[in-house]
Amino acid sequence: MARFHYPCALRWSDMDAYGHVNNVRFLTYLEEARVEMVTALTDDGATPPDLATGILVVHHEIDYTAPLVHRRDPVDVAVWVTDVGAATFSLAYEVADPGVVYARAASKLATYDLREDRLRRMTASEREWLGRYRDDVVVS
Amino acid sequence: MARFHYPCALRWSDMDAYGHVNNVRFLTYLEEARVEMVTALTDDGATPPDLATGILVVHHEIDYTAPLVHRRDPVDVAVWVTDVGAATFSLAYEVADPGVVYARAASKLATYDLREDRLRRMTASEREWLGRYRDDVVVS
Amino acid sequence: MARFHYPCALRWSDMDAYGHVNNVRFLTYLEEARVEMVTALTDDGATPPDLATGILVVHHEIDYTAPLVHRRDPVDVAVWVTDVGAATFSLAYEVADPGVVYARAASKLATYDLREDRLRRMTASEREWLGRYRDDVVVS
Amino acid sequence: MARFHYPCALRWSDMDAYGHVNNVRFLTYLEEARVEMVTALTDDGATPPDLATGILVVHHEIDYTAPLVHRRDPVDVAVWVTDVGAATFSLAYEVADPGVVYARAASKLATYDLREDRLRRMTASEREWLGRYRDDVVVS
Repeated sequence: MARFHYPCALRWSDMDAYGHVNNVRFLTYLEEARVEMVTALTDDGATPPDLATGILVVHHEIDYTAPLVHRRDPVDVAVWVTDVGAATFSLAYEVADPGVVYARAASKLATYDLREDRLRRMTASEREWLGRYRDDVVVS
Repeated sequence: MARFHYPCALRWSDMDAYGHVNNVRFLTYLEEARVEMVTALTDDGATPPDLATGILVVHHEIDYTAPLVHRRDPVDVAVWVTDVGAATFSLAYEVADPGVVYARAASKLATYDLREDRLRRMTASEREWLGRYRDDVVVS
Repeated sequence: MARFHYPCALRWSDMDAYGHVNNVRFLTYLEEARVEMVTALTDDGATPPDLATGILVVHHEIDYTAPLVHRRDPVDVAVWVTDVGAATFSLAYEVADPGVVYARAASKLATYDLREDRLRRMTASEREWLGRYRDDVVVS
Repeated sequence: MARFHYPCALRWSDMDAYGHVNNVRFLTYLEEARVEMVTALTDDGATPPDLATGILVVHHEIDYTAPLVHRRDPVDVAVWVTDVGAATFSLAYEVADPGVVYARAASKLATYDLREDRLRRMTASEREWLGRYRDDVVVS
């Protein structure tokens, strides 16, 4: 229905010797947005999904479309769900300011039981939670 | 002809709260291997290619296949060239110990003139340099 | 007169394998607050001080007083000026939530000319700028 | 008796927008050397000390004496023990190449029981272990 928007604070130290935000840091921005989205899912008083307790990254892909330089204002990281399976789900992301997209990305993630140290199936409730941020627009 | 092998030292601080090397750090390992490969190209006394002065990341993709935990021994990062264009080239990577692959990845990169702040075509010499690490096996 | 307060966003990846914000990351928080303070000095329309163009760290010291765990709310990093010399100045910091101090720290910094690659004396104007955040309370 | 020497691999991404290894990264180098020293203590077949299972940083101080730029060779981080108490111990460090010292530092650390989430006294065996790297030369 809706994309989750995370205003991600840049750090001066995110820049590398080229004076741009390092390409690897973008993946950290995606991670922070993802963690925030999962945490935000628990905000309305319902039982928090176990999602927050363990997610394993299976796959990432990212296209860099414009250089980003440190500034005081946060950058918007949009995250949304593109697919939900039995024990995996897929996300898409866009890191952008109004009028300029810095990166587009996609991830495949798996639900993971940290204590048992193995993958686990999602519950119906978790799949429903993820459905809130479902958007079928796939990163091109 | 040959893959470049970079013995990448792990850092304890590469682990996240799950007690595994964080997924984002793998991209740092790829970056370090890539920088080493380009620097190593200059080792035999010939004029260093301008490659070392500016490479822009256009695209990354990575599959995580096994969790990696900090230990004292480095992990092997193999890097090789899969395609060379006019102003771009493609790399593939494998992060592995003997018998276990932690991640497979691929990047597209562009040659970049830092002083002029714009993309630039590669020289014949640079394309030749890159050819040393050409290997047609593509990450599956 | 007044301390500068920087609401520092935590990142999930700031935590290490102990599940706490890693001790080293606190220094990054100090750095971000310092950069913000110097940038904020330029906010009132006057000529920005050259401070923003090059500051070298000469010394840090930090006491850790309580563990910090990742959460969605930022942590307050207070920064203030404790001494201003000819080519150096000193800062003190406190990383805290209401009622709990996580770390107290102090730094000595030197003004640095990046283009000339050497230390340089501060201008009267820069010393005046720094005076805005002067507070004589020294970290105990 | 002897200082522990850790050959610390630099990462290209350790450099910040100034083109030097970022001041904060030096603390990561100290951490890696410290972790290696504690791990190395277990190398001779004796029971590993619980030191490796939980150390809390209480205090750091560091003097930066020369800028460090990324290169392929590791930098030497010397670590040694300057004091051993009931539940705390102190380390000194020197980050250097032959003929040039980049940083000198000191830390106070506390032994910590991760499972019980509280400080704990060191065992006689641990104090003996630490004694191997005792050196009374204090960082000036």
